[in-house]
Amino acid sequence: MTTALIALDWGSTQLRAYRLGVRGEVLEARALPWGVAHLPDTGFEGAFAEAVDGWPPTPVIACGMVGSRNGWREAPYLDVPASTDALAASLLRLSTAQGRQLYIVPGLRDPARPDVMRGEETQIAGLLAREPGAVRESDIILPGTHSKWVRVRHGKVARLATAMTGELFHLLYQHSVLGASLPAPTTDEQAFRQGVLTARESGAAGVLSRIFLARTLMLDGELAPTSVADYLSGLLIGEEFRAALAAGWTKPQATLHIVGDEALVTRYQRAAETFDLHLLKAAGDTAAAGLWHLACLASLLPSHAMT
Amino acid sequence: MTTALIALDWGSTQLRAYRLGVRGEVLEARALPWGVAHLPDTGFEGAFAEAVDGWPPTPVIACGMVGSRNGWREAPYLDVPASTDALAASLLRLSTAQGRQLYIVPGLRDPARPDVMRGEETQIAGLLAREPGAVRESDIILPGTHSKWVRVRHGKVARLATAMTGELFHLLYQHSVLGASLPAPTTDEQAFRQGVLTARESGAAGVLSRIFLARTLMLDGELAPTSVADYLSGLLIGEEFRAALAAGWTKPQATLHIVGDEALVTRYQRAAETFDLHLLKAAGDTAAAGLWHLACLASLLPSHAMT
Repeated sequence: MTTALIALDWGSTQLRAYRLGVRGEVLEARALPWGVAHLPDTGFEGAFAEAVDGWPPTPVIACGMVGSRNGWREAPYLDVPASTDALAASLLRLSTAQGRQLYIVPGLRDPARPDVMRGEETQIAGLLAREPGAVRESDIILPGTHSKWVRVRHGKVARLATAMTGELFHLLYQHSVLGASLPAPTTDEQAFRQGVLTARESGAAGVLSRIFLARTLMLDGELAPTSVADYLSGLLIGEEFRAALAAGWTKPQATLHIVGDEALVTRYQRAAETFDLHLLKAAGDTAAAGLWHLACLASLLPSHAMT
Repeated sequence: MTTALIALDWGSTQLRAYRLGVRGEVLEARALPWGVAHLPDTGFEGAFAEAVDGWPPTPVIACGMVGSRNGWREAPYLDVPASTDALAASLLRLSTAQGRQLYIVPGLRDPARPDVMRGEETQIAGLLAREPGAVRESDIILPGTHSKWVRVRHGKVARLATAMTGELFHLLYQHSVLGASLPAPTTDEQAFRQGVLTARESGAAGVLSRIFLARTLMLDGELAPTSVADYLSGLLIGEEFRAALAAGWTKPQATLHIVGDEALVTRYQRAAETFDLHLLKAAGDTAAAGLWHLACLASLLPSHAMT
């Protein structure tokens, strides 16, 4: 199959490489552990060479932390409101040691907070390309280490906000007294739900005023040591929804889009129900779809590709 | 000087030992690194022997994590409301390998949340003994790794709540993206104040919805990398006051007592001003004062001591 484009989703912890065909279809995908924060000794060039090894000399487009200040080269943020066209017009071009042309997608910045994201703008471009009607006036959640809440209006990213939910969960469970000396966790949907409810009931005080419950309930014998992880996950994901509602970001009975890892999306969907919110799960490979669409708009593709 | 009592304030990270005279005055104080979570190879017995080495064979009274489930011996929590008398009547007696009598003060538990504390109940007993009139109807903050907010009514501890402020600061500054790759912090009172104001302005959404600002303001050049620590400290300490007000724990213009380390108390006092709260700093050595008072009530002292 003819390769039209190589697309890289290059974040902090992982590098995903896609070889795309002339209609943007994924012909081959590779996952490498060379996140921007975990490069091999050969650095960006070495990681890149490995990612595209043996693939045809097409242009390469990349999104994510590769364009951050600590990335390969900084692709300055675009301020919102920002359209997909604006992203495509602002690609940063870099010639690699191999002589390949690499185009880096800039991140977006919301000057009102300020807040920033890198990589998610491309996933949103992918969503917009696939389902323009459904997405052009919508709110989107991209859960993860740093969850992003993104508001799209008139087809442009209008606002964005970061909740450090995933990182906070990891820190509290791995390194705080809440997770100290616990056995390996097991799945406990009831404990997760209890955590979400506790977050909701924390009201305007918020979940930090209740977080120590992950320990006291366990000491009391009301929460199994193996269920502390799911309870804490419920507290923190619940807090994301509680805070979003309290800030007026969304309202009960609203429908939001969600893009992310399957297991995490399911977790968020369950939490959302408790807040009377509905989350619509997007199809996979949104980053590859967004990279393809941006490459089309930037005319990076060979003339026989079907944009 | 005659020794009447040995008092130990034995927490997770440190063991403070006091040799007290016949009026409860501190004749000698020792600080050892043998917290319950950092014992020497010789364990509790070895740490204890070192703490009291060469001191007369008086009774010994101890408070703090030494009485926890992971302590030397578990002294079960008393439920609130609980008086100083109730604490004194519930000391757990232990004979050490040296043949000393060690009395461990139980912690307190608030079944309504549930929430717990160990060590702080003794500091409050010390405050109540010193200033019964001022403290018997009061709210007390004991800031630290786990800040405790304690409500005293009719001279009894009536309610308590934990905010994991200190631990959260440490986790976020040492281990999260917020503190990553930063130079050593310098004092920046303005950054601290800005953090407190941001916490206040976060309103019902709460500070977790704004915490990523510690990174984005730095990336924007609005916050010096060396000032991120003070900004983050302001965010988290401010959140304690914001949440306490939102939960109805206290009201603007209220006066609360505060007990703790000098530098931390100053920090809390500055944050409190932003919320129109006034914090009265207690005199030092409240743990030693509380241990003395409890020993008096429990009749542990020799008959010539002046209780």
